[in-house]
Amino acid sequence: MTEQPRWFREDCDEAGSAFSLQIRGRLHQEQSPYQTIEVFETTHFGNLLVIDDFIQLSARDNFFYHEMMAHPAIYSHANPRRAAIIGGGDCGTLHEVLKHPEIEQVTQIDIDERVTRVCERFFPELCASNDDPRATLLFIDGIRWMEEAPAGALDIIFVDSTDPIGPGEVLFSRDFYAACHAALGEGGIIVQQSESPLLHMDILRPMIEDMRGAGFRDTRTLCFPQPTYPCGLWSATMARKGLPFDGFREEDAAHPPFATQYYTVDTHRGALALPPFVARQLADV
Amino acid sequence: MTEQPRWFREDCDEAGSAFSLQIRGRLHQEQSPYQTIEVFETTHFGNLLVIDDFIQLSARDNFFYHEMMAHPAIYSHANPRRAAIIGGGDCGTLHEVLKHPEIEQVTQIDIDERVTRVCERFFPELCASNDDPRATLLFIDGIRWMEEAPAGALDIIFVDSTDPIGPGEVLFSRDFYAACHAALGEGGIIVQQSESPLLHMDILRPMIEDMRGAGFRDTRTLCFPQPTYPCGLWSATMARKGLPFDGFREEDAAHPPFATQYYTVDTHRGALALPPFVARQLADV
Repeated sequence: MTEQPRWFREDCDEAGSAFSLQIRGRLHQEQSPYQTIEVFETTHFGNLLVIDDFIQLSARDNFFYHEMMAHPAIYSHANPRRAAIIGGGDCGTLHEVLKHPEIEQVTQIDIDERVTRVCERFFPELCASNDDPRATLLFIDGIRWMEEAPAGALDIIFVDSTDPIGPGEVLFSRDFYAACHAALGEGGIIVQQSESPLLHMDILRPMIEDMRGAGFRDTRTLCFPQPTYPCGLWSATMARKGLPFDGFREEDAAHPPFATQYYTVDTHRGALALPPFVARQLADV
Repeated sequence: MTEQPRWFREDCDEAGSAFSLQIRGRLHQEQSPYQTIEVFETTHFGNLLVIDDFIQLSARDNFFYHEMMAHPAIYSHANPRRAAIIGGGDCGTLHEVLKHPEIEQVTQIDIDERVTRVCERFFPELCASNDDPRATLLFIDGIRWMEEAPAGALDIIFVDSTDPIGPGEVLFSRDFYAACHAALGEGGIIVQQSESPLLHMDILRPMIEDMRGAGFRDTRTLCFPQPTYPCGLWSATMARKGLPFDGFREEDAAHPPFATQYYTVDTHRGALALPPFVARQLADV
């Protein structure tokens, strides 16, 4: 008698699609004060983090997202020393950011400590830098933290949020971007995960409008693969304070003091190459 | 009483994953002499072509694949005039190839005429160039055709095959590539869809080895999104006869006499930027 395969399935209503991963079982489930956190063991993608029924990351393919959240923004800043991560409780972005020796301090503010504690247990590879002396992990309201941050105190802000529903919704707002703008120094960069350019133009366009409305002069959207997210094509959007973007530190990016799985100078350039179907929809924002 | 959603679901055994699209119904089903051909009407991706239970294309997202099969290879050839398409019965690649005025003749050889007839009915936009006087559609064995082609008679060969199981399997073989090599002129290019670089390295690596074993000196693998294929990240591999690749006609590619949805000079360069996780696995082939 053969055991029937078991599956975790995520429906994507806005695409009329669903994505399923075969699982061996559920390793963890809890209701935190903010959300439902689950971890599954999949057959082919390693451990899988699910929050409120939405896939957050798999051990196998999170490198696309975390490398593309961290490295393009850092190499687009001339002298990135002081960083903040809003959200990012799985610590994967933090881990990538701390690979850069020029980063002197990173404060990560995620409202839900339970996400980090669960990831320390089930995704230790993502949390391997949590004890780095340059890192401070706070479990408080990231918006209030940003509003209270001293003006010009940051070089880069990573907004590593869940989808703009639930706790992540307030991170897609003009008021939040205005607080980020104030907290950044001249030439400072904010980078935010910005959903799928194929499926979520109704989120991406207003997000860019809000960034500009909050005072950011120039934005750049990066496209990259993310197999376990809906449609497999994802994006992050960078905005810069004061100055327009002016390339990135290609010499440094060509010789990173760490190994990567997706990021290179050439994939960085490739991610900036907006396909016409995206560029046309962003032409007037 | 609400009607329950209906779904088409494709399982991908090698990834332990499944992808589903919500459907309004099945528009067509037939058993051809070679395979089972179905067309579904989806809620969000337009019509969907399914062969032997595997998604071939959707109206909404086939542009990624067809543009990246056609344009990089054509712009990588100095003077592409004579082309052949092996497989490609949906005619989407043919449609893109014929957008290039420098192409003087294209022979498409797909063994299954029924695929083309079904697509003429349900994907008329892909078949809009089938009556172009430069196009010849043959419904015979593509391998035999290639073996009998006069030496040096072709500038580009597009191998637009199904997966290497069923009728498409023989198109992933050294003997077939040797026939292609003989049929190409000096500097001629073959381009073949080469599955997912994340999931199918066991196909991609031997394919490149077979291309080199058949006499092709240099190969280039292009990566691009294809949302309705497993994991959403797909590839095509080009090989060149006689000479190594030497860039592409960037001036021409920057001013195509047609609109594109994905292809640009920059996405072409981006597709050539192999991520390290792919490059490392291909380093020794």
